[in-house]
Formats: sequence, C-alpha cells, structure tokens
Amino acid sequence: MKAFVYLGPGKKALEERPKPDITASTDAIVKITKTTICGTDLHILKGGVPSCQPGRILGHEGVGIIEKVGPAVTTFKPGDRVLISCISACGKCVYCRKLMYSHCTTGGWILGNSIDGCQAEFVRIPYAETSLYRVPDGSDEEALVMLSDILPTGFECGVLNGKVQPGSTVAIVGSGPIGLAALLTAQFYSPSAIIMIDLDDNRLKVAKRFGATAVVNSSDGKAVETVLKMTGGYGVDTAIEAVGIPATFELCEKIVAPGATIANIGVHGTKVALHLERLWDRNITITTRLVDTVSTPMLLNILRSHKIDPKVLITHRFKLSHILDAYETFGHAADTRALKVIIEG
Amino acid sequence: MKAFVYLGPGKKALEERPKPDITASTDAIVKITKTTICGTDLHILKGGVPSCQPGRILGHEGVGIIEKVGPAVTTFKPGDRVLISCISACGKCVYCRKLMYSHCTTGGWILGNSIDGCQAEFVRIPYAETSLYRVPDGSDEEALVMLSDILPTGFECGVLNGKVQPGSTVAIVGSGPIGLAALLTAQFYSPSAIIMIDLDDNRLKVAKRFGATAVVNSSDGKAVETVLKMTGGYGVDTAIEAVGIPATFELCEKIVAPGATIANIGVHGTKVALHLERLWDRNITITTRLVDTVSTPMLLNILRSHKIDPKVLITHRFKLSHILDAYETFGHAADTRALKVIIEG
Amino acid sequence: MKAFVYLGPGKKALEERPKPDITASTDAIVKITKTTICGTDLHILKGGVPSCQPGRILGHEGVGIIEKVGPAVTTFKPGDRVLISCISACGKCVYCRKLMYSHCTTGGWILGNSIDGCQAEFVRIPYAETSLYRVPDGSDEEALVMLSDILPTGFECGVLNGKVQPGSTVAIVGSGPIGLAALLTAQFYSPSAIIMIDLDDNRLKVAKRFGATAVVNSSDGKAVETVLKMTGGYGVDTAIEAVGIPATFELCEKIVAPGATIANIGVHGTKVALHLERLWDRNITITTRLVDTVSTPMLLNILRSHKIDPKVLITHRFKLSHILDAYETFGHAADTRALKVIIEG
Amino acid sequence: MKAFVYLGPGKKALEERPKPDITASTDAIVKITKTTICGTDLHILKGGVPSCQPGRILGHEGVGIIEKVGPAVTTFKPGDRVLISCISACGKCVYCRKLMYSHCTTGGWILGNSIDGCQAEFVRIPYAETSLYRVPDGSDEEALVMLSDILPTGFECGVLNGKVQPGSTVAIVGSGPIGLAALLTAQFYSPSAIIMIDLDDNRLKVAKRFGATAVVNSSDGKAVETVLKMTGGYGVDTAIEAVGIPATFELCEKIVAPGATIANIGVHGTKVALHLERLWDRNITITTRLVDTVSTPMLLNILRSHKIDPKVLITHRFKLSHILDAYETFGHAADTRALKVIIEG
Repeated sequence: MKAFVYLGPGKKALEERPKPDITASTDAIVKITKTTICGTDLHILKGGVPSCQPGRILGHEGVGIIEKVGPAVTTFKPGDRVLISCISACGKCVYCRKLMYSHCTTGGWILGNSIDGCQAEFVRIPYAETSLYRVPDGSDEEALVMLSDILPTGFECGVLNGKVQPGSTVAIVGSGPIGLAALLTAQFYSPSAIIMIDLDDNRLKVAKRFGATAVVNSSDGKAVETVLKMTGGYGVDTAIEAVGIPATFELCEKIVAPGATIANIGVHGTKVALHLERLWDRNITITTRLVDTVSTPMLLNILRSHKIDPKVLITHRFKLSHILDAYETFGHAADTRALKVIIEG
Repeated sequence: MKAFVYLGPGKKALEERPKPDITASTDAIVKITKTTICGTDLHILKGGVPSCQPGRILGHEGVGIIEKVGPAVTTFKPGDRVLISCISACGKCVYCRKLMYSHCTTGGWILGNSIDGCQAEFVRIPYAETSLYRVPDGSDEEALVMLSDILPTGFECGVLNGKVQPGSTVAIVGSGPIGLAALLTAQFYSPSAIIMIDLDDNRLKVAKRFGATAVVNSSDGKAVETVLKMTGGYGVDTAIEAVGIPATFELCEKIVAPGATIANIGVHGTKVALHLERLWDRNITITTRLVDTVSTPMLLNILRSHKIDPKVLITHRFKLSHILDAYETFGHAADTRALKVIIEG
Repeated sequence: MKAFVYLGPGKKALEERPKPDITASTDAIVKITKTTICGTDLHILKGGVPSCQPGRILGHEGVGIIEKVGPAVTTFKPGDRVLISCISACGKCVYCRKLMYSHCTTGGWILGNSIDGCQAEFVRIPYAETSLYRVPDGSDEEALVMLSDILPTGFECGVLNGKVQPGSTVAIVGSGPIGLAALLTAQFYSPSAIIMIDLDDNRLKVAKRFGATAVVNSSDGKAVETVLKMTGGYGVDTAIEAVGIPATFELCEKIVAPGATIANIGVHGTKVALHLERLWDRNITITTRLVDTVSTPMLLNILRSHKIDPKVLITHRFKLSHILDAYETFGHAADTRALKVIIEG
Repeated sequence: MKAFVYLGPGKKALEERPKPDITASTDAIVKITKTTICGTDLHILKGGVPSCQPGRILGHEGVGIIEKVGPAVTTFKPGDRVLISCISACGKCVYCRKLMYSHCTTGGWILGNSIDGCQAEFVRIPYAETSLYRVPDGSDEEALVMLSDILPTGFECGVLNGKVQPGSTVAIVGSGPIGLAALLTAQFYSPSAIIMIDLDDNRLKVAKRFGATAVVNSSDGKAVETVLKMTGGYGVDTAIEAVGIPATFELCEKIVAPGATIANIGVHGTKVALHLERLWDRNITITTRLVDTVSTPMLLNILRSHKIDPKVLITHRFKLSHILDAYETFGHAADTRALKVIIEG
C-alpha cells in the first residue's frame, strides 16, 4: 500500500509499504477514506518528537471503513464506517478508568508516533473498541475528520479546561487551526465575548468570520492594553493559549481577570516565566492537557444536530498520491492560507 | 490605646494611639481580646508590602467584643463576641457577589495593611456584617484566632484549590504555620497519604505529630526521587506550595502525577519557571489564591464539632504590652520553634 | 400614586395609594417605567398564596429609575436606571452568603407578596444594593423586564439545575412563558435536541419558532412513546417540568434516560407520585428551586452581547392606567395567545 | 463444586454443580476464598427479583484467586488475588464510557442475578479486566469483601450523591448494614454531625460506636421534631435514605434544610409521595443510584491507608458448607444482631 513515511529530520517520502495486519486480539484494520495533516506532523518532520523514529508512517486523524477485526472485537465488524481517535485507549488502565485516555499506560498518542499512522491506505488501530467511533450513514466524512483531533483538542484543552460559560469573556491567543477550533467550540457555551489575538490579519479575518466578537493584531505590542480596555479594565475570564511559546503564554498571564483561567493548548518546547509575584493572589487557574478525546461522543451528537460546521476549517483537498503537495501547502500556511487539508484515500 | 505600629522598613513600636471611631455606617469597633502575628506582618516590617505605609497599626487576625456599631449594622450589637476575618468584604461588589471576597473592590486584605489593624486595644472593622462572625459563648478564643486567616488560607488556597479527596495523595512543601494549617485541614477529606516536605527536622517532627503520613527532609536534594518512590512512581495527586520561592514551586512541578493539581499558597516575590515543555501534556492544574474566607462558617461548624484542634498551632503567648517580645519570638522561629503566638488584649 | 391592589380572592382594583418612602437605611424608592404580570400574580388573585394578604400592591418584576435612596446605599443614586430583581437579598444572612438569595432570612420573594410590589408608579425596594442591578444607557427596557424573574427562573431552575450540556437532549414539559424561558436559555449550552411538550398547538408553534428542535402535543397520550422514539429509546438527559401538576411531573419521570436530571420549575399545589420502584436504580437526579437570581449579572452580559432576544416573549403592551385590561388579556392566554404583557408606567 | 442455589420463591439449597468455564475471551474464572450475603439475596429468595430465575447460584460479593483467564485478558493471570465487584462492566458501552457501570448495556448487576454468582467454590466473571481489582499481598480478605458492594453502595449512592461536606450535617435513615456503610464512609468528609435514625435501639447503639454523633429512635413518631431541634431548626444538609419504604423516604423529605440533598440508597418496591407542594421552592436535590463501583480503586487506597476498618461490619463467620446456617443468621438479623456474615470458601 502507499504510505507517507518520516525518514529522519527533513526527510519524508510517499512509499510502498506492506498492508498492516492484526497483531492483538483487540486490533482493527481500517481502510482510510479521508485523513489530514496536523501541526504536530510538521514538528515530527523537523525531528522534534523523539518518540517518533525514522521509518514511521505519520498521521493520527481520519475516517475509514473497518477491513478486519481481532477476535476480541465484538462491537465493530468489517464494513463499518468509523472515526479514528488520535488517542488510543485501552479502557482498563488506571488512567482510562479516570477518563484520562491521553495517559493510557499502553496507549495515548501513539498513532503516527510510536506506531504507524493514518496517512496510508490502511492503518492498524489498537484497542479498536475504545479508540474508534461508529459514524452514521450519510454523515459528512470531511467534517468527521475534524473530530479525530483538532475539535476535541480545542474543546477539551481550551474550552472545557478554560471553563467557558454563558456570558463570560474569552481571549484566544493564536488564530491557527487549533485556536480556530477553540473558537468554534467555545461558542457551544454562548460567551458574551471571544477576542481573537494573532499577528496575522488574514487569520484574524478568518476568526471574525468564524464567530470572534473582536480581533486584536498583537504586532503593535499593545494587545494587553487593548484587551483590558475591551473588558472594562477587568481582563478576560478565560485566556486560551493556542501557540506554544513563552511570549504568548505570558500574554495570557497579563490579560486575565482575578478568578480567571488560563487554558494551555500550545505544545511548548521551553519553559515559560510564571509571574507568581503578580499572580499569587489573583485566584488564577492554569491548566495543561493532552486531549483525552472523551468529548468525541458529544461532538458527534453536536455534529449530527448541525450546531457546528467543522468543514469551515478545511481549505484544501488532495489525493493520497499527492500528499507531498499537501504537506507543501500545509507547511506554508502563511502563504497558502491553509487551515486543514484533506487527504483522500 | 496601645497599638503596634509599623514605622518604616526595620522600624516598629508599641505606641499610644487614639481609639478608633465609626467612620462609615457599616463599621464596627471591636475591643481586641486575642490577636496574633502573621508571616506577612514580618514581610511588612521589612518594607516588602508597598500598600502598607509607615504609621500603620498592623495585624489582621483576632477575636474580640463589639464596642460600637454604625447605624447600618443590624445583626451585631455591643457586647457580641466576634471573630475578625482577615478579609473585609462589602458583600455587594462584583467580586463579593461571586464569593471572591479577597478581591472586594473596596475591601479585601486591607486590615493592618491600608487601614489600621488588630494589634491594638481596639480596631475599626469596615463592612462589619460581612467581615465579622458571631462566636458561640464558651468557645475557645485562642482556637478561634486561628480562623481569622491561617486555617481558611491553608484550607481554601491549599486543600480546596488542591482538590484533596478521600484516598488521594498529597504533598505539602513547607512545614511552617501555613503548611501545617494545610496539613490539618487536608485531613477533613481523608487522603490516603500526606507527605510533608521541609528543610527543618523540627518542623517535620511537628508535621508528623499533626498527621503527616510521611515526612521528607529535602536538604539532600533527593525529595523528587523520594516522593516518586513513595507514590509508586506516579507522583502525588495534589502538591501544595506553602513557601513562596521558585525552588519550592519547581519542586511541586516535579512531583505531580498526570492529572494532578499544584495549589499555590506561598507569597512569591519573583517569577518562577513553569516547565511547560514537560507539563504541557500532563493534564496539570495550577492554582493561586488569596484567601476569600468563604469557608469561615464551615470552619466554625467543624471547630464546634471538635473535628480539628487548631490550638496545636499555638506555641507562645504574650500580653499586648509585650508584643515586641512576641515579634522577637515569632521572627526567630527556627530557634524558638514558634508557630503561632497569641497576643492577649 | 396609582397602584394595582389585590383585595381578596377574586377582587382587585387600580387604586390611588400614597407614594412609598424609605423605611430602612438600605432601601431605595424606584419610579417604575415598565413592569409585567406573572402567573403567580394570577395565583394570588385566586387567593392561593396565603402570605399575600388583601390590600397588597402586586408585582415583582420591572425596571425603573431610582427616585431616592436610604443613607446606607452608596452604589446607587437618584436618576440611576435599574432592573428590579423579583428576589430581595440582604446579602449577609446564612443563605445569601451561600448565594441562595431565594431563602434570604429577611428577604426572598417578598415584593408584591408580603410587601408592596411593582405594579404601581413607585415601589420601595429593600436591600437595594443587592436587589437592584444597574442597566446601561441605551439598553432596551422591555427586554430587561424579562430579567426580573422569568429568564432567571427558566435558566436557574430549569437549565442550570437540569445540567443542560452541549450535545445533550432536553425535554421541556409545558410551553407557557416559563417553559419558553427555559427553551430560550437552554440554547446557551447548545444541546443537540430540545423537545417541547404541551397540549396546545399554538404554544408549540411558538416553541418551534423559539428554537425547539421538535414539538410533541401530548394530548394523544403518547408523549412518552414519542420522546423515547426520538431519543433512540434512551430517554432525555434533562427533563424540565414547567407546569406544576402531578401528570406533567410523572411524564418527566417516564422520559428520562439513566443518569438524567428532572429539573422542576412548576409551582405545585399537591404532592406527586415519585415512582422509586422504577427509578431507585436509574441514577436520576431531581431538583427543585425557587429562583435565586444569582444569574442576573450573567444574563445582563448575555443580553448586552445579543445572544438572546427576550423581547420575543412579549405579546402585548398596556399603560398602567389600563392594567385591568392587561390582567384580562394575560388571564385568558389560551384565547389571547398572550405570553408576557408589558405595563408601562 | 458446591454452590448455593435459588430454587424458586422460598426454596434454596446447597447443591453440587459443575465448575464454570470460560465462555468469552474476556472472562476469568475465580476460586472464591471469601464471600458474603446481601440483603438483596434475601429479596431474591422471596421471589422479589424477576430477573433472577430458579436454578441461579446467588452472590455478587467476594474475593478469590484467579484460576483461569480468557485469551483477551492480559492484566490478570492465574494465581492473582482479586476483589470481585458486584457490577460487571464491559468498559466500552455508552454507559461504561461515562463511568456509569451500573447501566453497562451487557453487564451491570448480573452476578448472582441473571448469571451464576459467588456463593460457590468458583465463579465465572465476565469482563474480568474491568470488573475485578487486584488486591495487594497481605491485605485482609474479610475487609476486602466489604468493598464488593456494601461500601461502594453506601459511599456512592449515599455519601457522594448526598454531597456530604466538611462541617455539614447528615442524617441517615436506616441503621442496617447499608446505612452503617454510609455512616462509615460519610466520615471521609468530616461532617460536623451524623444523625442516625432507626427503630431498633441495638442498631443505633452500633451506629453510635461506628461514629454517629447522635442517634434517634423514630418509633415515638417524633423524629422530625427531634432532628429539626438538633439542627437549630434548619434541618440537615444531607438526608440518606437507607431503608426503601415510603415512610422513611417521606421522613427524609421532612428533615432537610433548604438547599439540601436527599440521597436514596433504599431498594423501593412501591412509589412514594413527593411533597412538591412543600418542596418546590426549597432548592432540594433528590438522587437515586445503583452503585457503579467507580469508587472501588479509591476505597482500596483508603483501606490500605487504614482510614477505615470495614471489618467492624462483620458479625458472623461460616464455612460454605454451612451457608444455610449463614442465611438463617443473616435472615433473622433483629434476633441475631447480624450485620454482615462472612462465608469462607
């Protein structure tokens, strides 16, 4: 089969690979119909994710059709259409029993990382019954791909952890795909303001279209001042960090009201300065989280009821045979204005 | 009347001062029967709290007897015995209406800070009806003094924010009075382990007596290793920071399990390093808080039912006329082994 | 001044009454600009509320302009435009300190009940600072009147107590004004389905227009069957009772899924049968509540951000001089299709 | 093997039965070392549980040693000592994914009900990996048997659902084994008062020894009056129903304070009267629940830390060969003063 393979820092290829087979009784083999590329995949290609070694098929998002199941799989059968979660959950370890699938002791984020992933014609999914979700006939496959990772990440790490509430004020720092996913899902709770902050006017324009009540281009160094002014001097109730660098995290620290929450989504490569000399008495909560995908059933419900249209995140479409072009487009998002690209199987 | 006055960095005196009088209709004048000294008072004396200017009578804890009330005070009358909260709450601003009294727009921690405090024969208490608590006849005054600040602080900022639960594991970094208050109140929730960490063996001995299930002297630089070993390699569910310096905060970052909470109580003077490069995907919550004293009614209930004996925190007793000796004793706690000192009015 | 007065069961009049004056230092006198009639007022007129005695000026909803304030009122001044809460809260009793204003020991629902109310030119509001809300210049007065009682009641007793969540399924039994208020505010949380149940097709048509995803006319006795079918046999996650009779409460018992919540809003005059022989093992939660109006600041925020248009509830408008006609219209809602009627001062 | 078998209403026997074998790949066969009898078993013997048909081996509690596991079971192996949960959880259905194991679509309470149970030499446990709990070497087996059902039931249905809090007031109606389990586990949260109500002075004496702060014999018809007096006229914050008849449920309705919770544990055979005409505006929460045993890992932790001694519930011990005597003793608890009886394998 064709598969997109990481070959070491800066090296990648679309290669021919053997079709995967069942290796544990709880496995399923899924024929991929649609997949996508995640910012993390770019990070892997630069050599930035040590757990992902050369030779690995990338990709942890997608929808497809069950090809084969292991003997312990009773709730899926060949032919079933399924959504693949980016998180594999055994369903029985100490963390899975707390619904913290991200820290599953033998799973978690392994797809396209420590085991082969979804950017291929077929993928082996471990713990199939607790890592795949049946999709109703007739539902839109492209919209569903957004439920593998980006929507639950924006929702769980940003919106839920950030305790967004009806009537509350929210700032989202970073208007890339993940910040936009937080923006889309924050609206489930009807906050009275969602202020989107970024350096790129194009992305802010998109944010405005996706429901931001205000946008702030922080390139003038006045974002703190502007946000405080917009919130009557109080600051926001929730600040969502969706970039992953010290400057944006510290911006969050400066724009929160007493009692507020800073919900980190960004993947950070270095430490940040936490200004406790200013925050120790401000009744602030800071959260971090790797997505658990516990909200997937809820997101499927909400998708079915048309309360959200995740397809707005999709800007480009490619065949698997042209996945190198897809990476090119996604990797130069500032120029191509790519948000999410769909790879068709 | 006699009053203990801050006279500028390093300067203090027991002075003669005019007895305070009602200045707003919601005030009460309280005759102090017992008060105490807080670590924050030492901090003020060093010039470390800019909001507290020379000439200020210090002290924000105590019990006493109502001497006089303003015309709008209907629920207290002269002669009532009252507990003074360290936090003055107007009861009607946006923060008080969220039970975040610490950030009352015209109150908060003002006693012995921006207005005269309790280390005197009398004190004026603003917003008396929402800042004083009636105490039942026959209750122990010394125990009650611990409810002005130290117990609600340990409980709200450490235990409640730290989400201590039955069967969970807790580490408290810092075995001074405030860490010990967290230790005493953490036991309300029956955690299965409370590990106390400090550099001072004497304080750890006290912690053991107060209910710590294990103690760790971190002076050997192996605290992280030891705590991980004690918790089967997982780390603790709750780490409570009760010191206020970067080293102890970073220790907390290293000993928490995935999904854990770091509850900061310490008063920090500088920023700390938040290692998001390690924590971004660990599902961690970090909280800060200035005590709101919303738990005071509950603590009064629990005191009445003898589930806690806060008098164990009291090591020394002085007359107000000897308050300079009290400061001497409290200020040299390493030598005197002072925890809380009672000043009798 | 003119005032609408309850004169005993079945008797009412628009009378001339003396203008009220300040009686406690925390009072305010408010000149009413808009008020409305509540279903409870009709209940009083039938003699069904013993705490409300003949001679009482009715009405517990409205907006107006501060005419005069008592000496302890510092945050409002004559000329301020204010929203009147149906609940008077002292802000300092044991219940107010828990944000359970409905049970304020000297307040609660007293307006137009045990003290004179808002269906008059002027009204005395006790505990003004914790019972009135400043309204921004330029905001719509009619919309605001809906925030005195009906919206917080639908929201707090129905939506919040019912734990409506994104993607969840909700049934609201009773499509009168209060059920519709629950319908409008349930949408703050983006449930995937809101099924409205009533006997009146007109009211169900209104519900459909207000956002119900499905409507069920229960007059055919098949509502249980229909709702179960609509929810894949599971039942709903939240059932909101907005009628107040045994039949509708028991309907709620029959349409809830395991783990669901029944949130009662209805004012009941008799006991209902709770079928514990069927529900004891179904992990059900049942809640009751008198509105606390703790959500009023949030509702004001959400109103300002145009996430809701409560004016859709208003069907008729009258001058105070024609309030008897207003009662006539509101009292015959089945014929007049009245929801809320506005009385202009 | 020997097994205790229900043979139809009023009929039972200790019979010889074939040893069970693996039927699904997720099964385990457990050799029972200790089991016990539940009140529900008596109910079955009277013919009161239609899902349990004649021929069934009873029992849903116990500890034992793994004899054999199905091919999909990877976390247990023969020889492992295990605690058996009364609830079988598949770990993958819609309810298990919400931690509502009680409603597992193919499990739930099936042991000793719709499949053969634990009152035998061996038992087949379905979904072994999510229905068994490893027990540490050296732990007390008799204490562990209390964690199969009675402690999690008292804790989850009574204490957790009842929101018992530090300093709160609790009444438990029914001082039988399940009420006593609620009493023992309520103390995890340090309520300031636990009032135990029963008709039997002996049981109340036991309750006093187990930590009740007060006991009320309700046979004089004055329980309501007494409890109100004990709580300053307010009523309790939590009322736990641990009997299962209308009279005791209605007693709970009468002794709760505004804002309180009634947590039902009792297995009810008929409807009860819910006095909404009195409770509709009292901000009451009522909960029902079949135990989910989600708290089992926590209870194992707390057992290990010696915060509770569940062996106090054990009054009698029998060999499996004398299980008919055990039933005799347990079935006449009023005379024998039996609480829990241990059956040794």
